Amino acid sequence: MPEPRNRRIVLAARPRGRPQLTDFRLEEAPLPSPGEGEVLLRVALLSLDPYMRGRMDDVRSYARPVGLGEVMEGGTVAVVEASRHPAVVPGDVVLSRSGWQTHALSRGEGLVKLDPKVAPPSTALGVLGMPGLVAYAGLLEVGRPRPGETVVVSAASGAVGSAVGQIARILGARAVGIAGGPEKCAYLKDELGFDAALDHRAQGLAERLAQACPRGVDVYFENVGGAVWDAVFPLLNDHARVPVCGLIAQYNATAPFPGPDRLPLVMRQVLTRSLVIRGFIEREFAPLRPAFQRDMASWIASGKVRYREDVVEGLERAPEAFLGLLEGKNFGKLLVRVSPL
Amino acid sequence: MPEPRNRRIVLAARPRGRPQLTDFRLEEAPLPSPGEGEVLLRVALLSLDPYMRGRMDDVRSYARPVGLGEVMEGGTVAVVEASRHPAVVPGDVVLSRSGWQTHALSRGEGLVKLDPKVAPPSTALGVLGMPGLVAYAGLLEVGRPRPGETVVVSAASGAVGSAVGQIARILGARAVGIAGGPEKCAYLKDELGFDAALDHRAQGLAERLAQACPRGVDVYFENVGGAVWDAVFPLLNDHARVPVCGLIAQYNATAPFPGPDRLPLVMRQVLTRSLVIRGFIEREFAPLRPAFQRDMASWIASGKVRYREDVVEGLERAPEAFLGLLEGKNFGKLLVRVSPL
Repeated sequence: MPEPRNRRIVLAARPRGRPQLTDFRLEEAPLPSPGEGEVLLRVALLSLDPYMRGRMDDVRSYARPVGLGEVMEGGTVAVVEASRHPAVVPGDVVLSRSGWQTHALSRGEGLVKLDPKVAPPSTALGVLGMPGLVAYAGLLEVGRPRPGETVVVSAASGAVGSAVGQIARILGARAVGIAGGPEKCAYLKDELGFDAALDHRAQGLAERLAQACPRGVDVYFENVGGAVWDAVFPLLNDHARVPVCGLIAQYNATAPFPGPDRLPLVMRQVLTRSLVIRGFIEREFAPLRPAFQRDMASWIASGKVRYREDVVEGLERAPEAFLGLLEGKNFGKLLVRVSPL
Repeated sequence: MPEPRNRRIVLAARPRGRPQLTDFRLEEAPLPSPGEGEVLLRVALLSLDPYMRGRMDDVRSYARPVGLGEVMEGGTVAVVEASRHPAVVPGDVVLSRSGWQTHALSRGEGLVKLDPKVAPPSTALGVLGMPGLVAYAGLLEVGRPRPGETVVVSAASGAVGSAVGQIARILGARAVGIAGGPEKCAYLKDELGFDAALDHRAQGLAERLAQACPRGVDVYFENVGGAVWDAVFPLLNDHARVPVCGLIAQYNATAPFPGPDRLPLVMRQVLTRSLVIRGFIEREFAPLRPAFQRDMASWIASGKVRYREDVVEGLERAPEAFLGLLEGKNFGKLLVRVSPL
């Protein structure tokens, strides 16, 4: 049997516009051994998320970009293979940020032990993890829907959007989801209980959305930008709240964007309708994590929140799966199974 | 002596772009007599404010537009001439919304008695009135500057902006004002104590602003839009707050605005810098009014807040003065003296 090696996917080139498979490179390296205080992790599941597109660009953001030749970043569920750290022992299953690779060393910072008896470990990357928290906190802290209000969410069948719509319903609001394709829309309505679901790929989104929101839109949970924004914006009510969680439709665009300039109109409506537009990232909501974990676990247990995973087999398929994510090809939380749990 | 008549300025035409003097018309009418429960008011001071430009357009906003042929709206200080209302007697000085006219009937709703011994009645239209309240509440509730943070305010020598900068200083923040012309900038620095003041009419605003804000911008109190926004936007720090109080640079624009489209870039920065952009109007801050009145009165008494008024003589000059306001020709809170107090 050959010595096991670490396989890893590094950023080979910074994309211009839409990323290509050639922007990634699969490398192999000897398996590292843990030094004193270190842990050797074997990655079981890798989370693929839209924010990773931003890390590929060398621009100012809330996090530093991935360097050329560096392993692509990412949240992972991993198994402890060897430990010289007092907190974990071989066989422990942990949440880590090991990135797009089969193995990683850790000094223990940020590792969270997972109990597979409490919840499937994969949920730590989805509904009980970062996507669930930004859905929960973005909706409760920024969106603040009141009973009877209308919440619209884009990318609604995704990891964040599906949680947003279901939490909106739990809070007594109407949930209207926008997603790509009839299959996703049927899932939103029939399986997740959204009040309405609209296919942004079909004609006449603006008109259909207006019909689905007869009392306007009080919260627009923005995951997408682009044409979906244009459909939602005219429907925003006075004092509407717009949590901005993602803008996947424009991540690949190369500025400048062609006119007309929509900013003055948006600012005018911010003023005359007293709108709130607010961006946020996960870490500012750290204080909400305990409440999130408790609420979300209980909602999952009672069947009030359901989730769906889209699992791709094998690390080498991560780049292709990630490119598909940017096109909306996944259906549910996108995960890569890197090795068995 | 001729019978006194009511003179009033009505909206004669809806402007396309920049308003013209011909969009207004001076009319005369017999003086009304108060019926049971009514008050006849003689207007002494009329406030001219940028929001009035919005009322001239027939578009959705937080308030209905002024109708063609209707008296232009506006806040006023008035003297009770005759009263068949139990709350006031002739000679009382009141805050009212009598609009652009010399006399008005009131049923008493919204009248606030003013005590000239406590504060000059004109301040009820400025630093102790609506402009002061939106400055105070917009800064405290939306801007939330912390000590040492940098607050930038546009239209900084105006009724709102001058209060914003001085309150920012009281809260321990740095105040950087943007205004039109060297005289206004000197006033901001020398008389109001702003840390820096920049003339947006001179070359290189973006570079000069960057120099004046070496640690970036934490709060941008937006009164203007347009080119000033473009200078401030790149300097916004993570978690910066943008209270949107006015957009005077674009009120006269006729859509669509030429490209490039700045919205995607702004939304991207909202996301990656966790920005808050929030519009607001006076009435949502009504609960803060008592605290505002108390704080502002004490700041004026102690000299921590100073104000400046730009008084135009005679109702018939109101249209010309209003057009000047939209061009930034006033220097301080713009008032029209309609009759002696």
